[in-house]
Amino acid sequence: MVIIMRTDARQQEIDHVIDLVQRSGFQPFVNHGVERKVIAVIGAMDADKVQLADRFSLMPGVERVALISEPYKLAARASHPGGTLVRVGAVTIGGPTLAIIAGPCSVESRQQTLSTAEEVKAAGANLLRGGAFKPRTSPYAFQGLGREGLEILAEARERTGLPVVTEVMDPHDITLVAKYADVLQIGARNMQNFRLLQRVGEAGKPVLLKRGAGCKVKDLLMAAEYVMSEGNHQVILCERGITTFEDTTRYTTDINAVPVLKALSHLPVVVDPSHATGDWRYVPAITRAAIAAGADGVIVEVHHNPAEARSDGPQALEPARFAALMADLGKIARAVGRRMPRKG
Amino acid sequence: MVIIMRTDARQQEIDHVIDLVQRSGFQPFVNHGVERKVIAVIGAMDADKVQLADRFSLMPGVERVALISEPYKLAARASHPGGTLVRVGAVTIGGPTLAIIAGPCSVESRQQTLSTAEEVKAAGANLLRGGAFKPRTSPYAFQGLGREGLEILAEARERTGLPVVTEVMDPHDITLVAKYADVLQIGARNMQNFRLLQRVGEAGKPVLLKRGAGCKVKDLLMAAEYVMSEGNHQVILCERGITTFEDTTRYTTDINAVPVLKALSHLPVVVDPSHATGDWRYVPAITRAAIAAGADGVIVEVHHNPAEARSDGPQALEPARFAALMADLGKIARAVGRRMPRKG
Amino acid sequence: MVIIMRTDARQQEIDHVIDLVQRSGFQPFVNHGVERKVIAVIGAMDADKVQLADRFSLMPGVERVALISEPYKLAARASHPGGTLVRVGAVTIGGPTLAIIAGPCSVESRQQTLSTAEEVKAAGANLLRGGAFKPRTSPYAFQGLGREGLEILAEARERTGLPVVTEVMDPHDITLVAKYADVLQIGARNMQNFRLLQRVGEAGKPVLLKRGAGCKVKDLLMAAEYVMSEGNHQVILCERGITTFEDTTRYTTDINAVPVLKALSHLPVVVDPSHATGDWRYVPAITRAAIAAGADGVIVEVHHNPAEARSDGPQALEPARFAALMADLGKIARAVGRRMPRKG
Amino acid sequence: MVIIMRTDARQQEIDHVIDLVQRSGFQPFVNHGVERKVIAVIGAMDADKVQLADRFSLMPGVERVALISEPYKLAARASHPGGTLVRVGAVTIGGPTLAIIAGPCSVESRQQTLSTAEEVKAAGANLLRGGAFKPRTSPYAFQGLGREGLEILAEARERTGLPVVTEVMDPHDITLVAKYADVLQIGARNMQNFRLLQRVGEAGKPVLLKRGAGCKVKDLLMAAEYVMSEGNHQVILCERGITTFEDTTRYTTDINAVPVLKALSHLPVVVDPSHATGDWRYVPAITRAAIAAGADGVIVEVHHNPAEARSDGPQALEPARFAALMADLGKIARAVGRRMPRKG
Repeated sequence: MVIIMRTDARQQEIDHVIDLVQRSGFQPFVNHGVERKVIAVIGAMDADKVQLADRFSLMPGVERVALISEPYKLAARASHPGGTLVRVGAVTIGGPTLAIIAGPCSVESRQQTLSTAEEVKAAGANLLRGGAFKPRTSPYAFQGLGREGLEILAEARERTGLPVVTEVMDPHDITLVAKYADVLQIGARNMQNFRLLQRVGEAGKPVLLKRGAGCKVKDLLMAAEYVMSEGNHQVILCERGITTFEDTTRYTTDINAVPVLKALSHLPVVVDPSHATGDWRYVPAITRAAIAAGADGVIVEVHHNPAEARSDGPQALEPARFAALMADLGKIARAVGRRMPRKG
Repeated sequence: MVIIMRTDARQQEIDHVIDLVQRSGFQPFVNHGVERKVIAVIGAMDADKVQLADRFSLMPGVERVALISEPYKLAARASHPGGTLVRVGAVTIGGPTLAIIAGPCSVESRQQTLSTAEEVKAAGANLLRGGAFKPRTSPYAFQGLGREGLEILAEARERTGLPVVTEVMDPHDITLVAKYADVLQIGARNMQNFRLLQRVGEAGKPVLLKRGAGCKVKDLLMAAEYVMSEGNHQVILCERGITTFEDTTRYTTDINAVPVLKALSHLPVVVDPSHATGDWRYVPAITRAAIAAGADGVIVEVHHNPAEARSDGPQALEPARFAALMADLGKIARAVGRRMPRKG
Repeated sequence: MVIIMRTDARQQEIDHVIDLVQRSGFQPFVNHGVERKVIAVIGAMDADKVQLADRFSLMPGVERVALISEPYKLAARASHPGGTLVRVGAVTIGGPTLAIIAGPCSVESRQQTLSTAEEVKAAGANLLRGGAFKPRTSPYAFQGLGREGLEILAEARERTGLPVVTEVMDPHDITLVAKYADVLQIGARNMQNFRLLQRVGEAGKPVLLKRGAGCKVKDLLMAAEYVMSEGNHQVILCERGITTFEDTTRYTTDINAVPVLKALSHLPVVVDPSHATGDWRYVPAITRAAIAAGADGVIVEVHHNPAEARSDGPQALEPARFAALMADLGKIARAVGRRMPRKG
Repeated sequence: MVIIMRTDARQQEIDHVIDLVQRSGFQPFVNHGVERKVIAVIGAMDADKVQLADRFSLMPGVERVALISEPYKLAARASHPGGTLVRVGAVTIGGPTLAIIAGPCSVESRQQTLSTAEEVKAAGANLLRGGAFKPRTSPYAFQGLGREGLEILAEARERTGLPVVTEVMDPHDITLVAKYADVLQIGARNMQNFRLLQRVGEAGKPVLLKRGAGCKVKDLLMAAEYVMSEGNHQVILCERGITTFEDTTRYTTDINAVPVLKALSHLPVVVDPSHATGDWRYVPAITRAAIAAGADGVIVEVHHNPAEARSDGPQALEPARFAALMADLGKIARAVGRRMPRKG
């Protein structure tokens, strides 16, 4: 922590800051700059001391306080430099083989889900996505099939062998969802639902954590820290588009976040081009870009009849287009030294 | 709904769209434009038909679909043109008297809360705020006193007569919080925690709904619609700053949202200048601006010793500064035809 | 400047940094933190040394470099703590009397401009705005009357006594525009047209500098620094809305920027509610908010027939609405200890 | 154009709108919706009629006006469905061979520029970039070598055969810059300097048009329209990062803009990963992503000693890293059916 004094700070104000630094168990180091004094604070900045920065920033004569260390610890690259591998059944996420997570936005029926699962598996996916509990912007929209949807997903896993990724929205539902799912997804709108983060941290299943559309990369890492601080280090980070002023797409894919997250954290990173664009026509380009940028995988919405989908149809790929994309993606994967999942 | 065809749409594609419009129970109205055809869809757009827009947008030959009506109904100004009054004990929010909601960010101790409550009451506040359950960005930060905090708030109400506004973070806690609180606050990070919105809608207490930092005005109205669709129409909307590229303040106060929300909705609107700036030095200016812009009230953080606050100290006003602000605010209130709460 | 080393920096890397600090004429001050070393750099950070920060940030072992001082000097509050007064004829901007700058977006005709000028003067404005050179998003839109427009503005000044604020878009036109105008306006789209900034800095007339819609507060101050570094310190800063994800208004008024600019700089600050909202219905609320927040004035578009305006009609107030707004504004002005211009 | 009436519009108001539609030379088409009337306006919406939308939007009883057609015409994909090829000497941009534009941010010296030019050519670039006139945020920063810089660039072209891309900042300089440059670059900060756009449109040289950091995709297309409306259709669009709330990178690369621009326009699209990230460590990942997303090329900053660069050092790649990136890029190019430039 570095405390920057105002140019007109009086000696008494400086002395008070130094005094509080010492009483807080740190060692102050005063740099007598030409324009102003700067006080470096030396000592272990444990998590419970982070709020001291706020306190110093309010003392008379203080201009501002700059933190040197990041507030996330367990999620930081330094805590696990080699990179984390998340294991889901026979699939390993974060290693040389890409995670291709595909399926419908919502589980709408047994028939739709089973056939889509077969199709994405045939095209090369190694995990199945599908929503049984749906966070919808409108209270009048389809809210998902709930438990019935989970049972359908479990049947699809049994038939295809694909592990299931599905969202949990309420701490109360975690036990139920964890009974059927292989990976618990936290949706973008719940990324800072801290109670939910803590509870999935206790559930002992891998977590796919989507970045909130209005949240910074560092907020995402702090959300991961919430899950990890409960003892669950099997977290997958997911970039799914941020809100910006641009209006030709629903969100703006923050492609920079892919190399940034890989640099700042050891956790695997996947990209969701379906939500990040909101338009199936742009999904193939952004899927390719994600892998080229170094993502460990993608999560893509596939629907056998997007015009009939009960949620987010405009962003879903038809199975044939998804299969064509997978073929292209294999070439991109090889170009960056990665492998597509082995089929079948 | 208006369906805009591509300039190169073929007659067969146009016929298919017209056919689906009719089969969906609407009446199509084709405008033969010079460049392209535009199909107006006439008929009652009930809530369950909104997703038809997605479906039409995916049909061959369709360029895009423009919705004419807004997806929120109960929250729309048209559903209650005179404006809603929210009643909390003896206080009415949305009428000529302003709502001045003040108190500490967190309930930290009995002593701190009771003395702050007395001070904000003396300065002219008519509601008390204070957090017992705190959504904190870091899992290592103070998370609130929980039930003990609620009991302290209830005692503060008993002593001062000020109704209590406090946050609820988890559907599981609603019964507990509702036992003590007069207004249930939904925090910005939970604005799209739809399960929580539904449950507070059932709880039968007024709700103060904070806008998510990455959420549009229309998202806020849809969130209010969630609460209202459960039968609870006593909702107060709160602008508390949005995320933008500007970095001299923590968030950007969307002051435009005040007249916009008053135009689009009948619900009362308050502003939280403490979170929206993140800096106590700017809180008085933004509080004055909020009332001048037509807000029905403000929610301001006050702490008797901000440097010792366990959360958000930098944005809290000391009681003496808060009292000075209240004096200034009286003049602004009169300038816009509003009244400050009666003291005592 | 503070150089933060990586946690795994080697001693040799640290030595290299220290060596370069010394060779650059500074004194290094090494803090041996628990996690990492931090090197404070002491000495006068002249303008030509700012780019050294980039250089240090690229040295092996360096994590990042934090600047302590701001890169603007002349525009900083510290360089003129009492606040700058900009004098335009008999009008003083930045003192107790507000600057009310009003008039049409574009000068469209002699008749329109003269009658609007009379009307805004009668309602209480003390400066006249009007565009002769118009930066239009579309090349097919009305581009302004040019020299003829300037002559009309000069006639309006002669008749009403109101000094004229008008935009200059091209360094080549400055001599022409300065012959007619009392204040040279730099439009938002040209805020970082650095050549234009330098040339208006040499022109010896007060400058009204609009914030670019995608520019930070600190970018605005750097743009002012460009003008001031040519010797012209008569600069008025103007907040006119920034681009955000919010879409119910054309831009988002950054009302926080008013107290922030007053804190960081000594230059007067005005707000343009017409552009910042893009909708005349919201202009009165935001005008009131601007003055309540401490702005030194506003710049408002007025048109006697907005539906016939050749540019930006939807954001222009009719004269009667403008007059009503002025009456309200008088009360807000008094509430914050300011005065409206004396009429007539 | 579709005019949406308010739900409470009176018949007289509707009649007035219909009357003005007819008097403006259009044919009105009234749809009697259940909730409200919607008036479709049929007829050729020439460029000079676009402002009619503003006029209708202000009539009593009108809620809002929706435009059906886009305001750009020459830049629209429909005006040249096959795609535009921009020819610069022997290089064709927009065809199967990628444009690899590389070189230093600023021309700092003859030696630096010539050696960097040789190096980027050896690594596979087919165009040379370098700034002689530099738009710098600070007036105290290095502003470029001007004419001397242009002469050095011309010498570098002579030695390497690489055509030169360089920025022009002032209409006054166009003749000078065009004498030396093969492609005139418009910088992001001048994207809406409309006078400059018009003048480069007349200069008869290909233009590389950078997107303003706060500008929408459609603003970029309107800026291209400015250049094209002067008769110059040889325009290259460049995505170089937009301002968002994310703060781990200097800007956010809008990778979605690549497929969006290819869909909306026929002009070639390149990406500038150096500015879009501001950090050389992320440049390779974003360069690969750009090509994978379908860009027609990239523009990358290369400096033989970034720590000594006089501008933007932190985002420049060393020549060896650039060469390694080119090798990787070849594989990505093949994966998407493109070719790298032939070396030598």
